[in-house]
Amino acid sequence: MTNNLPIGVFDSGVGGLTVAKEIMLRLPKESLLYFGDTARVPYGNKSEETVIAYSRQIAQFLCSHKVKAIVIACNTASAFALDTLAAELPVPVIGVVKPGAKAAAAKTEKGRIGVIATSGTIRSGLYERYLNSINPDIKVFGKACPLFVPLVEEGLTEDSVTKQMAERYLTPLLEEGIDALVLGCTHYPLLTDVIGEVCGNGVTLVNPAYETAKELSELLSKKGLLKTDDTPAVHRFFVSDGEEQFRRFADTILPCELEEADVSRKVFS
Amino acid sequence: MTNNLPIGVFDSGVGGLTVAKEIMLRLPKESLLYFGDTARVPYGNKSEETVIAYSRQIAQFLCSHKVKAIVIACNTASAFALDTLAAELPVPVIGVVKPGAKAAAAKTEKGRIGVIATSGTIRSGLYERYLNSINPDIKVFGKACPLFVPLVEEGLTEDSVTKQMAERYLTPLLEEGIDALVLGCTHYPLLTDVIGEVCGNGVTLVNPAYETAKELSELLSKKGLLKTDDTPAVHRFFVSDGEEQFRRFADTILPCELEEADVSRKVFS
Repeated sequence: MTNNLPIGVFDSGVGGLTVAKEIMLRLPKESLLYFGDTARVPYGNKSEETVIAYSRQIAQFLCSHKVKAIVIACNTASAFALDTLAAELPVPVIGVVKPGAKAAAAKTEKGRIGVIATSGTIRSGLYERYLNSINPDIKVFGKACPLFVPLVEEGLTEDSVTKQMAERYLTPLLEEGIDALVLGCTHYPLLTDVIGEVCGNGVTLVNPAYETAKELSELLSKKGLLKTDDTPAVHRFFVSDGEEQFRRFADTILPCELEEADVSRKVFS
Repeated sequence: MTNNLPIGVFDSGVGGLTVAKEIMLRLPKESLLYFGDTARVPYGNKSEETVIAYSRQIAQFLCSHKVKAIVIACNTASAFALDTLAAELPVPVIGVVKPGAKAAAAKTEKGRIGVIATSGTIRSGLYERYLNSINPDIKVFGKACPLFVPLVEEGLTEDSVTKQMAERYLTPLLEEGIDALVLGCTHYPLLTDVIGEVCGNGVTLVNPAYETAKELSELLSKKGLLKTDDTPAVHRFFVSDGEEQFRRFADTILPCELEEADVSRKVFS
């Protein structure tokens, strides 16, 4: 029965685990089938064409394992590949960009929203388009922050160097008078403390991972796709490289602990 | 005639251009066929198995275009794939690790050498093995510097944040009393000023790109493979993604300017 199939989630690597985490917290009965493209990470500096090609390969792989819905947990892939995948696949597909944009539009009072993300996501202009389709008067200020991902992956989430880079990246946005800031890359919620400190109380931080889990829950409920049996959730993970490294990182993020057998390698030839 | 074929050079992305540059300066008549795997960059955090598989694909592609020798311009790929490719390919293959190690061994007086590189290269222990095969008494101190590549690619080569990271990465090596330091990643020569400032006069910096061009020149000469005709060098570049971005970066590094037609895309399916 379709309801009891897992939800497919994919990302360019480990960052999408912040989305998986929010889904696990909100829908604890649901099983996840996660794919992290760790061999080809990062997507943020790749072209639209390449990101679509990689996303299509992964989505087809997830569908071949039977999933009831697909969540694109990577902002860059959501920006570039959501429409293509939604048109091609036999299951509902949601990305992280739209839920993040919706929440930011609801939260801003001044109509001035900052978006921080990878260069790919910023270049795509997709957050801006979504935000302006909700309210054409909203002013959007985008800023690529290419050092945030390596800083997180180096474990420097609370480091003075990270704070300095956050100040450089965020000051131009703060000077524009934003009152909401979209954390438009899956790694960035792990920098919430530093980013919050630099932004101060006047700026609401929007975590698209949280908003996506909320939207997924509404979508499954509306389509009658929520899990109906009472078996416990079973999560499986596939990565294109470095299973052990992935498992260690996952254990620092997810609300559950992974066994060795939970993570397998899948390489696209 | 074999002598007049180009030299194949490959790297995980743009970093190998520092090696291409040294070859162009030392062997200005020789033509290069360069491959940068910009879609799958970086290699530094990928497994040995994956790096060998990617390197094999690229080397076979270069051979299919007829080259007289192959230079592995990526330290991680040299560390993991040199022996495999040298055994499999019909042309001579050299990597950047061995020439770098040889030069460092010649330059140290105290027998204490530092090696900075990606995590993959450090993990492989290859610099240490080479250095100790030259002189088993040499003490090698390795340090992975994962933020250096993104800092270079952000254009922050002379920035205070880069200096702070250099201090953190290098202080433990300096405390070990090294008097030579191998810049064991192709991007690092672009940080020579900052690294030199942190290390001071007591430490000789070794640039494997420079040493590799020297060794290549000797190898071609010994094998009678130096170019014999007087036509000007013709360089061609293939990348797996982002031709335009590659061309812009190349123009900041190479001693020649690239036309649009010089850079093509080659995607491995």
